[in-house]
Amino acid sequence: MKVSDLEKVIFQKKSYLCVGLDPDIQKLPAHLPKTAQGVLEFCLAIIDSTDSFSVAYKLNSAFFENLGAEGWNVMSAVFAELKKRGLYSIADAKRADIGNTSEQYAKAFFENLGADSITLSPYMGHDSIGPFLQYSDKAAILLALTSNAGHADFEMLKLENGKKLYEQVIETSQTWTRSGDLMFVVGATRSQEIQNVRRICPDNFLLVPGVGAQGGSLEDISKYGLTDKGGLLVNASRSIIYAGNGSDFAKMAGDEAKKLQREMAEFL
Amino acid sequence: MKVSDLEKVIFQKKSYLCVGLDPDIQKLPAHLPKTAQGVLEFCLAIIDSTDSFSVAYKLNSAFFENLGAEGWNVMSAVFAELKKRGLYSIADAKRADIGNTSEQYAKAFFENLGADSITLSPYMGHDSIGPFLQYSDKAAILLALTSNAGHADFEMLKLENGKKLYEQVIETSQTWTRSGDLMFVVGATRSQEIQNVRRICPDNFLLVPGVGAQGGSLEDISKYGLTDKGGLLVNASRSIIYAGNGSDFAKMAGDEAKKLQREMAEFL
Repeated sequence: MKVSDLEKVIFQKKSYLCVGLDPDIQKLPAHLPKTAQGVLEFCLAIIDSTDSFSVAYKLNSAFFENLGAEGWNVMSAVFAELKKRGLYSIADAKRADIGNTSEQYAKAFFENLGADSITLSPYMGHDSIGPFLQYSDKAAILLALTSNAGHADFEMLKLENGKKLYEQVIETSQTWTRSGDLMFVVGATRSQEIQNVRRICPDNFLLVPGVGAQGGSLEDISKYGLTDKGGLLVNASRSIIYAGNGSDFAKMAGDEAKKLQREMAEFL
Repeated sequence: MKVSDLEKVIFQKKSYLCVGLDPDIQKLPAHLPKTAQGVLEFCLAIIDSTDSFSVAYKLNSAFFENLGAEGWNVMSAVFAELKKRGLYSIADAKRADIGNTSEQYAKAFFENLGADSITLSPYMGHDSIGPFLQYSDKAAILLALTSNAGHADFEMLKLENGKKLYEQVIETSQTWTRSGDLMFVVGATRSQEIQNVRRICPDNFLLVPGVGAQGGSLEDISKYGLTDKGGLLVNASRSIIYAGNGSDFAKMAGDEAKKLQREMAEFL
């Protein structure tokens, strides 16, 4: 799915909610087996109960990789289900390497798994990101300012030119080929910074994690992050997928997603 | 295997060679099937023919991931073979994410695959690296200065304090818990910078890719990078594993590894 299609869906569904699938096998509801199959059932049930209220799903690849080859197959099945339902998919994989290696990652995630987009670390620069931007129907999502405590170590460092590193990442990457298909990760715990980010990139989509479990304010993010075309995906993971842990976990996840969607409809 | 054991092996074998396993299925010798099984045979043959001359092997996870679940099983089998032979293994995976996610990556690579170490991107700071440093018998290898053209985009940026970003990455990370088990990636194409890196971290191991196909000089790297304890792993990938592409590819890989080991023996 292209970013332009995602924009349409946002206004159709009156939602910019992204559901984060971080399926910790230890946290599965008791009636599901603590196996790769259990994780697959869990993800499919969450998708089924939330897809009226959300436009995108973000698969955190770590939680699949730690199940080995079976986990990779589950990740593949979940991406296939999202494609079938016309939902936008994000591989939250934080990859990027020298060019010939990034080409292999792009093939793995875009061609084989069928993800619509992937999160990438900007550290290694343009030729580590370029291979992902060669797919005209896919998007590359660069880490800019993250929601964890460690963001202060490097992302917030002041450069000689007066800019912060994360600001420079956004500015520099906008000079790259097909930079219109770049999105940026901006943590919700720093809503005061979202206004700043919008000044540097008025049009690019922002992927904002950290609402819910990590404590960001949806109102602030929406106020500063939304554009005429939407331009925003707000991700909630744990607050939705672990809303309940009984046999009604999917319904409770759906209720939680609905609550967020209702708020979003007012901000749009 | 602990870093202290790696140090011993370096002097026993008179080698600090790391063989990079980037098995591109399109480049397998003609007599091997272009399948996951072919990739496994290829890797095992390369290990068998080079392990007298090398102390470590670096698996580039992208080249396994692009084979899907089967590729993950091949990666697992290769790590198991390295462990059986007492060879130091590096998962060249360029991971790192918020703490609860890095924990899952650490579990996937250290516990399930049995890798001795993993390459990580420093961008997200201390709590994205910390979970990897909680394993007392494992090492975390931070990207500092890479060998690709894109290193100029961010890694070389001058900070307000006069340091370059990659220098700050090395300095800051040395204040973290168990930082003695940090290694740093420093590209061989910048041998003049290795001297500089050694000034900032006199003792940590450096993983130096870019010798061979990417054109770095082994003499310069060794001169500036070696310490009393070794402290250096020089990686060659394509120049060894694709030294030949006939039925004698493994022998030719061994010859190439031997050539590098002979040079290293003189520098040690």
